[in-house]
Amino acid sequence: MAGNSFGTIFKLTTFGESHGTAIGGIIDGCPAGIMLDLEKVQEELDKRRPGQSAIVTQRKETDTVEFLSGIFEGRSTGTPIGFIIKNSNQKSGDYSHIQDSYRPSHADYTYDEKYGVRDYRGGGRSSARETACRVVGGAIAKQVIPEIGFSTFTSSVGDIYIDDEKDLDLSLIESNPVRCPDPVSAEKMEALIREIRSQGDTIGGTVQCVIKNVPKGLGEPVFNKLHAELGKAMLSINAVKGFEFGSGFKGTQMKGSEHNDLFNPDGSTVTNLSGGIQGGISNGMDIYFKVAFKPVATIMQKQQTINSKGEEVEMQGKGRHDPCVVPRAVPIVEAMAALVLADFFLQNKTSKI
Amino acid sequence: MAGNSFGTIFKLTTFGESHGTAIGGIIDGCPAGIMLDLEKVQEELDKRRPGQSAIVTQRKETDTVEFLSGIFEGRSTGTPIGFIIKNSNQKSGDYSHIQDSYRPSHADYTYDEKYGVRDYRGGGRSSARETACRVVGGAIAKQVIPEIGFSTFTSSVGDIYIDDEKDLDLSLIESNPVRCPDPVSAEKMEALIREIRSQGDTIGGTVQCVIKNVPKGLGEPVFNKLHAELGKAMLSINAVKGFEFGSGFKGTQMKGSEHNDLFNPDGSTVTNLSGGIQGGISNGMDIYFKVAFKPVATIMQKQQTINSKGEEVEMQGKGRHDPCVVPRAVPIVEAMAALVLADFFLQNKTSKI
Amino acid sequence: MAGNSFGTIFKLTTFGESHGTAIGGIIDGCPAGIMLDLEKVQEELDKRRPGQSAIVTQRKETDTVEFLSGIFEGRSTGTPIGFIIKNSNQKSGDYSHIQDSYRPSHADYTYDEKYGVRDYRGGGRSSARETACRVVGGAIAKQVIPEIGFSTFTSSVGDIYIDDEKDLDLSLIESNPVRCPDPVSAEKMEALIREIRSQGDTIGGTVQCVIKNVPKGLGEPVFNKLHAELGKAMLSINAVKGFEFGSGFKGTQMKGSEHNDLFNPDGSTVTNLSGGIQGGISNGMDIYFKVAFKPVATIMQKQQTINSKGEEVEMQGKGRHDPCVVPRAVPIVEAMAALVLADFFLQNKTSKI
Amino acid sequence: MAGNSFGTIFKLTTFGESHGTAIGGIIDGCPAGIMLDLEKVQEELDKRRPGQSAIVTQRKETDTVEFLSGIFEGRSTGTPIGFIIKNSNQKSGDYSHIQDSYRPSHADYTYDEKYGVRDYRGGGRSSARETACRVVGGAIAKQVIPEIGFSTFTSSVGDIYIDDEKDLDLSLIESNPVRCPDPVSAEKMEALIREIRSQGDTIGGTVQCVIKNVPKGLGEPVFNKLHAELGKAMLSINAVKGFEFGSGFKGTQMKGSEHNDLFNPDGSTVTNLSGGIQGGISNGMDIYFKVAFKPVATIMQKQQTINSKGEEVEMQGKGRHDPCVVPRAVPIVEAMAALVLADFFLQNKTSKI
Repeated sequence: MAGNSFGTIFKLTTFGESHGTAIGGIIDGCPAGIMLDLEKVQEELDKRRPGQSAIVTQRKETDTVEFLSGIFEGRSTGTPIGFIIKNSNQKSGDYSHIQDSYRPSHADYTYDEKYGVRDYRGGGRSSARETACRVVGGAIAKQVIPEIGFSTFTSSVGDIYIDDEKDLDLSLIESNPVRCPDPVSAEKMEALIREIRSQGDTIGGTVQCVIKNVPKGLGEPVFNKLHAELGKAMLSINAVKGFEFGSGFKGTQMKGSEHNDLFNPDGSTVTNLSGGIQGGISNGMDIYFKVAFKPVATIMQKQQTINSKGEEVEMQGKGRHDPCVVPRAVPIVEAMAALVLADFFLQNKTSKI
Repeated sequence: MAGNSFGTIFKLTTFGESHGTAIGGIIDGCPAGIMLDLEKVQEELDKRRPGQSAIVTQRKETDTVEFLSGIFEGRSTGTPIGFIIKNSNQKSGDYSHIQDSYRPSHADYTYDEKYGVRDYRGGGRSSARETACRVVGGAIAKQVIPEIGFSTFTSSVGDIYIDDEKDLDLSLIESNPVRCPDPVSAEKMEALIREIRSQGDTIGGTVQCVIKNVPKGLGEPVFNKLHAELGKAMLSINAVKGFEFGSGFKGTQMKGSEHNDLFNPDGSTVTNLSGGIQGGISNGMDIYFKVAFKPVATIMQKQQTINSKGEEVEMQGKGRHDPCVVPRAVPIVEAMAALVLADFFLQNKTSKI
Repeated sequence: MAGNSFGTIFKLTTFGESHGTAIGGIIDGCPAGIMLDLEKVQEELDKRRPGQSAIVTQRKETDTVEFLSGIFEGRSTGTPIGFIIKNSNQKSGDYSHIQDSYRPSHADYTYDEKYGVRDYRGGGRSSARETACRVVGGAIAKQVIPEIGFSTFTSSVGDIYIDDEKDLDLSLIESNPVRCPDPVSAEKMEALIREIRSQGDTIGGTVQCVIKNVPKGLGEPVFNKLHAELGKAMLSINAVKGFEFGSGFKGTQMKGSEHNDLFNPDGSTVTNLSGGIQGGISNGMDIYFKVAFKPVATIMQKQQTINSKGEEVEMQGKGRHDPCVVPRAVPIVEAMAALVLADFFLQNKTSKI
Repeated sequence: MAGNSFGTIFKLTTFGESHGTAIGGIIDGCPAGIMLDLEKVQEELDKRRPGQSAIVTQRKETDTVEFLSGIFEGRSTGTPIGFIIKNSNQKSGDYSHIQDSYRPSHADYTYDEKYGVRDYRGGGRSSARETACRVVGGAIAKQVIPEIGFSTFTSSVGDIYIDDEKDLDLSLIESNPVRCPDPVSAEKMEALIREIRSQGDTIGGTVQCVIKNVPKGLGEPVFNKLHAELGKAMLSINAVKGFEFGSGFKGTQMKGSEHNDLFNPDGSTVTNLSGGIQGGISNGMDIYFKVAFKPVATIMQKQQTINSKGEEVEMQGKGRHDPCVVPRAVPIVEAMAALVLADFFLQNKTSKI
């Protein structure tokens, strides 16, 4: 039962392989009557685009989205919004070395086991290229809930972390190619990424998202809790290994008397270790969470691997890949968060009479 | 759009409040022809039951499941399996103190904001009592995939962790009330829980799950990746703040050259930092993940809070509550994992011709 | 992928076999804050109950619904409403004759082919007994949309039809056991049913439903058109062979110039051959449709049939069955219509900003 | 909650308006490993195409489908199949007369009421143009279940019916532009359509579908019965007013002793008034059903109507429209039937162990 749709009321379905004619998707359930700013959608896509800075992959892809339906005279009409992004980079020749071999810690082997057939060009469907469609969906989702504010940034690269206690100026996120709002950390992170790349290696990191001005009441217990859907959304992004919100893993070491968020008379809380969600429902405080990204599996070093006959072969990454996926993952994390929030915003319209 | 169903093909829908007549559920999509061992279901429930040991809540609940349909002459018939668990403990009197006040870091406030009405008795629907139905569903799910082995245990309480490098004898999990397979750690954890309880306080912890003998090919990219559904499943459990699988958050500090799992000729991998999942699809290696539980919010200390009029009031936990939820959370984590695996096992039957 | 749920936002999931301990269901997605009149629910059930009049089956079943959750101090709380109806009539002995034989035009054979196992007692899950749960769901659904009025009645039995042109006094529906608002036709229908029963035979008929005061805008094209879901709902009822709305099959003989419903200045239409639905969306005019019921398959005559070994055997209906299902089908048709309308009413809350 | 997806495991989602850039869709859940004959898909589309014969609309649309993903080296890969059909006929000028007026018995009024905004060009999303995407989906669906045979044909136009008792040579369906396998009736139907067109009027009709070689066990009671989904599928097609299968509405006049299908020793039945489905599950006999189409609403005669201000205006159909939709509806009915069967075929893989 294929899993290429996300959401229930605001629902994104995507298609497309790395080296097919085009990738694209359908957004079904966008409410009618919204003046859509399509340039903003392209701007979000540009944040995910290869070649945007010196520390990301230098592949040439313009990633221009074309909308095919669902918008009339600038407004959403309530009918499905179809869109495509043409693939400019469709040469198959470069991928002959992986046609019959399994790249370590990639999805080549598991796709072959599951489906018995695999579009090996550039990873096919398992390529992170599909996340461009998520960014389109998320950019439309944001316009359904314009009052909600999203700030997403790189919170660590390798062992370089922003200090959790530090007050951050979130307006600085786009001031550096790492997308880190702390300039001192950003500089260190960028230096680390450059060093790692010079080794032909890759490095992991974490992305943090802060969501402000969230209406109270979003989330659908007991299974579709707000943070459970956020977690699923994040874990569905390529290379993600973990998710935590509010106090997260650190909270496991705390006592209840330290961890409980006491109320102010207006219903806000003095602390916010809950991360803006109680019982799976937003309480109006900031939602914040962290997403763990492993190092990119494609490295520019020789690795031992096997081919589809089980024979050992040697392999080395070709082409232009990211030494660290985190800076380009920032807009993807934000897009998925927006998809979740817009969907719950619409779902909540039916929760009471 | 209420969220009381989990799963797609193997689907559990639950109902019930802490202090209603009964809780219960419907399992739809259990394949026909399975000889169901209903005593095993009750055994799983008994692991979640209050009063099972000295370090958990001493509330009296027998939690006896009654099956009402879908089973004939011992076998599943392919029709929905309805079940109820009667609530033995329905006195409302004890909860008058929370009728009009919001317990800190509970769901009282958010339920009121979302629904405008709330069954305040014992937390109503937001009580962890509903997880008993998950345990029933999970115990049936396990019998759909009997070849898959689940081992779930307490991996930390507060700041006491099992050493990650240590070889664990998973047969020891049930040998102590903490459900920790490392006897030395178990003893320390139990002592910590007793101390915390004596303070009228609570403490968090983590649960780890190891899944062995998983068929290759489970998981439905790109959104319904195996680990994404596992993450959602875990995050939907009360008090969970985080989820990581394979290398998890630690993996973010690694280089690609260290993190990649090289293949053996048989398709298995030398290391397993991937945690048994690549590209969202199981690769046949062990799946393992960790779940972070915050400290229980109900403490036996006085706390400042507000009532529904926004007035400040003082509150103190009453009744018999868990000082640490982790030992009783172990069977819930395992049940949710089984629900996810059984569902993907069935889904995968349609992935190729 | 089992199909025991109906609806998307207002969703009913049912369980239970004819001769199990109980049947029941879960209503998920009922908005919070509705004062529910549970006596009305029981009244609807009583209309479906065996033994209610001389022309229906004389089986003894009280069909008392017990609500287990989701209602607090008389109000829906937004959490799932669980309910059960205990089976009073669980003796298995009477059904030994069908344990190993397939009743003609029943589901015995197909259940065995599909599931490989079958609860043969009273038809098990395929018994129309499950429709009692639909009536409960529908009776709650009506209370979500109290402004919408449903009138459902017997429009034909065998070859006795109400004249389509006749003005009907819908307040007379419950004035006779056939549930036909035309007293002259009702008398003939009742006489025909008595005659058919005296032959040990059964007869078919049609049920008509008229829905008044429907808000404009209900229905979700292009696949989930209002009449498409109504049709699915009706066709899912036992013994149904056809569905038509508005001009129906007769409309196929008309010209466009005759069939088009011209507008009045207020947006209503002069005629209503559209049956209150245009493009799959309600237009505010009355919705009306007809449902075709075949004759009940269980007859009190000897029939040739086969057993599970393919051997020919003779069979004769036992027990107390309906000579005509239509009078008892009336509340089921109405319940399914209410489920569809309540669901679309809630869905429509998200169609525009 | 928008309704532009059909199916559960084999799922088609469509987008597109009559006069947008393109229409298209995504087929998710097509099993991997099927050699797809894409020319056959285009052939099915050509049967729906305008201008194919003298008795259908003479609009110029080539309706060429382009596949964008999910197929590699001729085979389905298990990933979503995206496709588009460009609109060649995008001039908006022709539709200025309906920009502000509501065509009688069209969806203009209800779309405005539901969404508050409407792409008025050519009916926008409510145009039957969207059914081209259904034909693409159905043509792929057929290749998932190649052993199942579909024969679909015109069974009546206006008051000209094929005699139900007549033995039909289904190989003759495509031998005439009406798609009627009875040559004598076909000639009369064609003459009637020509006459109706000369009056500037339109006429309704019925389409019949016969499905042979259906595996036993398809259908998912109690709500997703095989015929219930078929009914929904058919009723979701533009202009459909009714659906009946097996004995249909005529069956309501029969006695049980006449209607019951007695078994042959091999499990087949002597008669087939059940229409190949018992208890919502296929029994291996031919499935057959009829679909009622109303006359096309656009007529070439002057009609009184209203504009969006409620003022009375006069309107006359422009452009090139079908005098009878039935011949072009035949491939759409067949496509929807194939979508239903393929989906249940896949669903049934999980019904037993």
